[in-house]
Amino acid sequence: MKPRLFTPGPTPVPEETLLELAKPVTYHRAAEAKAILAEVSEDLKYVFQTAQPVYTLTCSGTGGMEATVCNALAPGEKAILCTAGRWGERWRGILKAFGAQIVTVEAPYGKAVTPDVLHAALAAHPDTAAVFATLSETSTGVGHDLEAFGKIVANTPALLAVDGISGLGAMECRTDAWGLDLVVTGSQKALMMPPGLAFVSASAKAWAKIDATPIRSFYFDLRRYRKSLLESDTPFTPANTLIKAQRASLKRVRAEGIENLWARHARVARACRAGVGAMGLTVFAERPNSALTVITVPAGVDGSATLKALEKKYGYKLADGQDTLKGHIWRLSHMGYTDAFDVLGALAALELVLIESGFKLDAGAGVAAFQKAYAAGA
Amino acid sequence: MKPRLFTPGPTPVPEETLLELAKPVTYHRAAEAKAILAEVSEDLKYVFQTAQPVYTLTCSGTGGMEATVCNALAPGEKAILCTAGRWGERWRGILKAFGAQIVTVEAPYGKAVTPDVLHAALAAHPDTAAVFATLSETSTGVGHDLEAFGKIVANTPALLAVDGISGLGAMECRTDAWGLDLVVTGSQKALMMPPGLAFVSASAKAWAKIDATPIRSFYFDLRRYRKSLLESDTPFTPANTLIKAQRASLKRVRAEGIENLWARHARVARACRAGVGAMGLTVFAERPNSALTVITVPAGVDGSATLKALEKKYGYKLADGQDTLKGHIWRLSHMGYTDAFDVLGALAALELVLIESGFKLDAGAGVAAFQKAYAAGA
Repeated sequence: MKPRLFTPGPTPVPEETLLELAKPVTYHRAAEAKAILAEVSEDLKYVFQTAQPVYTLTCSGTGGMEATVCNALAPGEKAILCTAGRWGERWRGILKAFGAQIVTVEAPYGKAVTPDVLHAALAAHPDTAAVFATLSETSTGVGHDLEAFGKIVANTPALLAVDGISGLGAMECRTDAWGLDLVVTGSQKALMMPPGLAFVSASAKAWAKIDATPIRSFYFDLRRYRKSLLESDTPFTPANTLIKAQRASLKRVRAEGIENLWARHARVARACRAGVGAMGLTVFAERPNSALTVITVPAGVDGSATLKALEKKYGYKLADGQDTLKGHIWRLSHMGYTDAFDVLGALAALELVLIESGFKLDAGAGVAAFQKAYAAGA
Repeated sequence: MKPRLFTPGPTPVPEETLLELAKPVTYHRAAEAKAILAEVSEDLKYVFQTAQPVYTLTCSGTGGMEATVCNALAPGEKAILCTAGRWGERWRGILKAFGAQIVTVEAPYGKAVTPDVLHAALAAHPDTAAVFATLSETSTGVGHDLEAFGKIVANTPALLAVDGISGLGAMECRTDAWGLDLVVTGSQKALMMPPGLAFVSASAKAWAKIDATPIRSFYFDLRRYRKSLLESDTPFTPANTLIKAQRASLKRVRAEGIENLWARHARVARACRAGVGAMGLTVFAERPNSALTVITVPAGVDGSATLKALEKKYGYKLADGQDTLKGHIWRLSHMGYTDAFDVLGALAALELVLIESGFKLDAGAGVAAFQKAYAAGA
């Protein structure tokens, strides 16, 4: 059986990137290592759509999120938390650990935080130091309208910090044009790499705040990263084999073109939703994003057992819901090195396993609808 | 030309470990991933010589050091810093970032902090919350007598936190028997892996202090790692391909046996020092450790130019001194997947390049002395 990874992180890694990882290790302070970091940093600016430097941290995405909080917020400062799921709650955990005064703007699971409630919250709390939001809420499949958030926050002294971990690269995100002050992503999603690296951008507005805020970490001190990157270096020993491999995956992103990458994800996502609908299933997210499709488990079906059968019988690894959503949703990633034909196969396998479990479904309905919608184009 | 890595981190990685890194990425919350982490955690306990759990963090060694400080020290608490070089100073940077009251116990570069000065400092500062020390001070090649430090600190309420990043595995270090409360190491030294993972152990005494101390991080909150590890899991997405590859390198450590690994490093280090002496050179460290040999650049020789020639002509990559020691010392690692014959070759290349630069030296003197000392055995 052929194993196939459809979890919303980690995602499949291209062969040329995997082969980079098998090469002998080299010294991380050598000229070659600096040239690689310089190249990766340039390509990251392109991926982020920013003219500001993007910093490479050796940690998971959560570490990158922590870096934004501990650099930009002083203890007791006010933070507006936009949360619509588990990853919004991740911001909360970090904000609490760093003693922020949290104002919550919440949407129920499956829905998105709307720009107008953010606008109202900012109006009610003009002393807000920063707004924390999530591009792709991977726990529910919801995407947020960061362009609108950016316009609202830009008119205030507050910063807009964005968890773009699972969204960046998979959906339109224009850091500079949208006024996103702090953006975090990880290597293991649309950037087609194993986990282990986080990337963080900071706007001039963010830097002004950071430079005026006492730092509360050594390892995550972005000023050290800023200083080192001037010499194409990192302040601490980086996961240099991951950085070298990231270069290979970023070349693939460059070759495809970031707008094409967004369009490909959007097209696959639309086709996937059409397929899901034709199977008699519903999409969980009210405002779905292009990184993944989250499917509501239909009544009478054991969601977790279905995923186990899917993996055991056909090798397809999708993700279950988390926390209270466990057993109630299926999460199917189409990020990064996953194309339309991969997703078509996943829908076929899901059809099969549902039919085998007694769920009423016309074999082929889902894949035909997927194909039809995909053929209709961008 | 064949490139050969002799920097004191990163170090060469065994082929079977590199090949693990080229395998397709899998889901980090799957049963297989948990089984791998469980296995790695058990093998780390063996490497650390501890019965306590060892936690796997996705970060560089500095991140692991920060984890000990932000978990175990409250702001303003007193810390005795034993420093004899750049890596002792790394502790200082972290301690300052977390607002510790620092009492410095210092030895000049090339010398070790002695147990008696630590004893005196602890007697003068009975309110010390923790002592911070370095097993192998890689910037100078000095090793510290952690066994003696442990005996002294054990009689006080203070914790003993050890940076074992470049020493652990390369030299005797018995976490439990020596009373080392917090020990940190990294993947990229004697543990034969690329950088990207840090490992942290904590004694019962350390846990009592951690549980009584308000945490000042989310990502480095060791209580989260403790809770997750009960289910063979990590609190945040780990660099799971690195963990899987670390398993392969740890199997190699297990197969060799930790005492044999220490003895091999000690034997190679003694032979290397004999070779260096026979070349008319001197070892920089007064109390050298087995992880690396640090050689004083002789008068009239351009240290940095010699290293450049060594790499360019013969492919041998040694490390220069750092900061004020740049150009004044050569650092030659014999950690991990580096054996006697590798080091013999490095000495031969160093002899050659020195002779070619006009340095007076009998060709073969160094390698013969190395071989003689090595043959004399453990």
